[in-house]
Amino acid sequence: MTDFDVVVIGAGLAGLTAARAVRAAGRDVVVLEARDRVAGRNLGGLLADGTPVEMGGQWIGRTQTEVLKLVDELGLETFPTYDDGAAVTLHNGVLTRYADESFGLSVEGATEVGRLQQELEALAGTVSLSSPWTSPAAAELDRQSIGEWLRSHTDDAEALAFWGAIVPALFSAEPSEMSLLHFLFYIKSGGMLDNLAATTGGAQELRVVGGAHRISERLAEELGDAVRLDSPVRKISHGDDGVRVDFEGGQVTARRVVVAIPPALAGRLVYEPALPAARDGLTQQMPMGSVIKVQVAYPTPFWRDAGLSGFGFSLDDGLGVTMDNSPPDGACGVLVGFFEGAHARTAARLSPQERRASAVATLVKLFGPEAGNPVEYAEQNWMEEEYTRGCYGGRLGAGVWTQYGAALAEPVGRIHWAGAETSDVWNGYMDGAVRSGHRAAAEALDRLEA
Amino acid sequence: MTDFDVVVIGAGLAGLTAARAVRAAGRDVVVLEARDRVAGRNLGGLLADGTPVEMGGQWIGRTQTEVLKLVDELGLETFPTYDDGAAVTLHNGVLTRYADESFGLSVEGATEVGRLQQELEALAGTVSLSSPWTSPAAAELDRQSIGEWLRSHTDDAEALAFWGAIVPALFSAEPSEMSLLHFLFYIKSGGMLDNLAATTGGAQELRVVGGAHRISERLAEELGDAVRLDSPVRKISHGDDGVRVDFEGGQVTARRVVVAIPPALAGRLVYEPALPAARDGLTQQMPMGSVIKVQVAYPTPFWRDAGLSGFGFSLDDGLGVTMDNSPPDGACGVLVGFFEGAHARTAARLSPQERRASAVATLVKLFGPEAGNPVEYAEQNWMEEEYTRGCYGGRLGAGVWTQYGAALAEPVGRIHWAGAETSDVWNGYMDGAVRSGHRAAAEALDRLEA
Repeated sequence: MTDFDVVVIGAGLAGLTAARAVRAAGRDVVVLEARDRVAGRNLGGLLADGTPVEMGGQWIGRTQTEVLKLVDELGLETFPTYDDGAAVTLHNGVLTRYADESFGLSVEGATEVGRLQQELEALAGTVSLSSPWTSPAAAELDRQSIGEWLRSHTDDAEALAFWGAIVPALFSAEPSEMSLLHFLFYIKSGGMLDNLAATTGGAQELRVVGGAHRISERLAEELGDAVRLDSPVRKISHGDDGVRVDFEGGQVTARRVVVAIPPALAGRLVYEPALPAARDGLTQQMPMGSVIKVQVAYPTPFWRDAGLSGFGFSLDDGLGVTMDNSPPDGACGVLVGFFEGAHARTAARLSPQERRASAVATLVKLFGPEAGNPVEYAEQNWMEEEYTRGCYGGRLGAGVWTQYGAALAEPVGRIHWAGAETSDVWNGYMDGAVRSGHRAAAEALDRLEA
Repeated sequence: MTDFDVVVIGAGLAGLTAARAVRAAGRDVVVLEARDRVAGRNLGGLLADGTPVEMGGQWIGRTQTEVLKLVDELGLETFPTYDDGAAVTLHNGVLTRYADESFGLSVEGATEVGRLQQELEALAGTVSLSSPWTSPAAAELDRQSIGEWLRSHTDDAEALAFWGAIVPALFSAEPSEMSLLHFLFYIKSGGMLDNLAATTGGAQELRVVGGAHRISERLAEELGDAVRLDSPVRKISHGDDGVRVDFEGGQVTARRVVVAIPPALAGRLVYEPALPAARDGLTQQMPMGSVIKVQVAYPTPFWRDAGLSGFGFSLDDGLGVTMDNSPPDGACGVLVGFFEGAHARTAARLSPQERRASAVATLVKLFGPEAGNPVEYAEQNWMEEEYTRGCYGGRLGAGVWTQYGAALAEPVGRIHWAGAETSDVWNGYMDGAVRSGHRAAAEALDRLEA
């Protein structure tokens, strides 16, 4: 006899969704969460005046149907990200304002970027989402980084600068740090590049009223006592009779376990017996991305008056991407910005004061002198978070998909793997997390009597 | 008051060397070892007739002066690896016998390999061993894999096949899995490629009588009760007053701790407080190599009669490299072979019977039909070892040295890092392990009163 049917490790979106599905099937579930809060890579924050700001993942796109369905079921509401007016791009000191899809590039640059995008998306079309390592050209696509592919396919400095900034913006990693196969898998998983990069019509179209972390909070409310906070898991013992999970402060037994934390962190647990080498090897080489998210608040969203959307893209600065992140009623103005990839690691070495100065200086270049006088600045360095250790998610370097990919979601005995990294649709996004929770719960429920 | 001056985690060569240095300075030391044996990546084995064979690291070169000195101090002896006669290379089904430095390549292939080697070694000359990330061309060298560099510097199929086999033979990893900067650092650290690859005059020249694991065993004998086996460490708490190390079965306190396990495994311990993001990020992306070592025994070293040294190099097979590993008196014949890199991962998916058949089939191709009737076969899959998780060591993929390298050996408060991966001389080798133990012990002793 075990304490529970299923124990879930991690009270992020994936884990809570899995737990909800287990409960819905009439089975006993418990969720062990290391932190004193739920929601994982979603994180609510408040400005001094009480305005909610989001310090973690926050946007939802309309094709992210599973998370949208969940939002609806939980009685939450979404509102559109502010996206009216022109965007700006800064490159080699030149600020370009634009209202089309050009990203402010020169005609030649935009043409070359478009050509490369077409070629990449044609390649992505050949990738299997359910098992990328079986794609026809998997070996060739996986032995090179997306950086190598770009360098060998264009000499255009502007195009290379663009890709060198857009890749970290999407992956919080540098082009050299990721296999081409992973890049292709990921963009296909989200419906190709425009869908990933766009606000309206793309992955950044909607926000959740009160913040995306409220999805997890509502799920946790439903689950009640089944969610145990402050319970970092240290060890999973597993065998024919079930699983035992040791955490700081106790242990529980169950018939199956769903591990809903990123692979890099899952690899740090103790398993008894130890995991197969293929699974262990995967967790050795799926590092988390690097990002520091900053929120800069102003009395008003002044850029709107200048006809600007707040979308800024700097190829020159540490803070590479900005967006309007003001509350729905526009009662004050908030610009959100990101230090990503190598820029995040560089910015992490600055003092908080220096980092703030760097971010604000970029905002001034993008949106004018008014950006120089914020009323508030908040930041979140996800690399420092012990129980996340980087955002947006885990990535696979050259060779890893083909050598270890099969171990990413394949259960090991009574251990099932969830998390945004394991989804074949909207991999790395909240929608992927929800899908992974459903998939892992279904696996565990199917095999409960096994 | 703490229990010890220094606690060392890991009773491999690095940890035991560090402990010996602490003891020699008149300080109290304890070594916590997860396994029921010492010596880490060195491992003794016995054939059925009592012949010792080595299942882990075994060779020592004459320029590996620190480990040689230690061997001498411990009263152990070395003997030369058998290296008389011709070597053989198999490529595209053609077996070539050679007694020069050509590796059996065609004149054109050998010339191209030599040209690339010269160019690589010139680049390696520019790399700083103490801080590779400060090398003049660090960014450029680190953004590409050695595989990318090779592909962009030659079209010669034979040369590419050679490098595609020699890189795994030296690193147990594929050219695409490692940054060019790491490759250059590593070869320079060992005195350039010929020194790494050669038997006589190189890193494989000497063997230890009884096996290299005897070095660790002698060190452990000296240390006596200070070495505690079966004590896997789970947590390091560290602060102004000292460190506390929790292991399965107990805890110890000390003023400083030397962590002498590979970075990938060090990253799996729990640290309180958590480690800085730069150190944590490093451990997320320094995966261990992939190797299965096989020993195949025959009544006699029959290849010697045919004028062969036993050195075999197959560009066609999973078992890529073989050497004569017979006991010093030649009482029986032993060929040692390696599945390395991707070949190791493929071989790991075979049944033991299939793997043995694959290895023996390669030996038949290299050394003739007599190789088809071994009297014994033994193998060691280092990827399956819970407390090593791959050999020969940890490697750095594209971008990691420049982004995270500074955290490799830099102490974090009272925590010092040892292990072959942290040495600037003979990185990855037994000699590097010994040097790292000395360095970490000196650091800890210097700061004992701090």
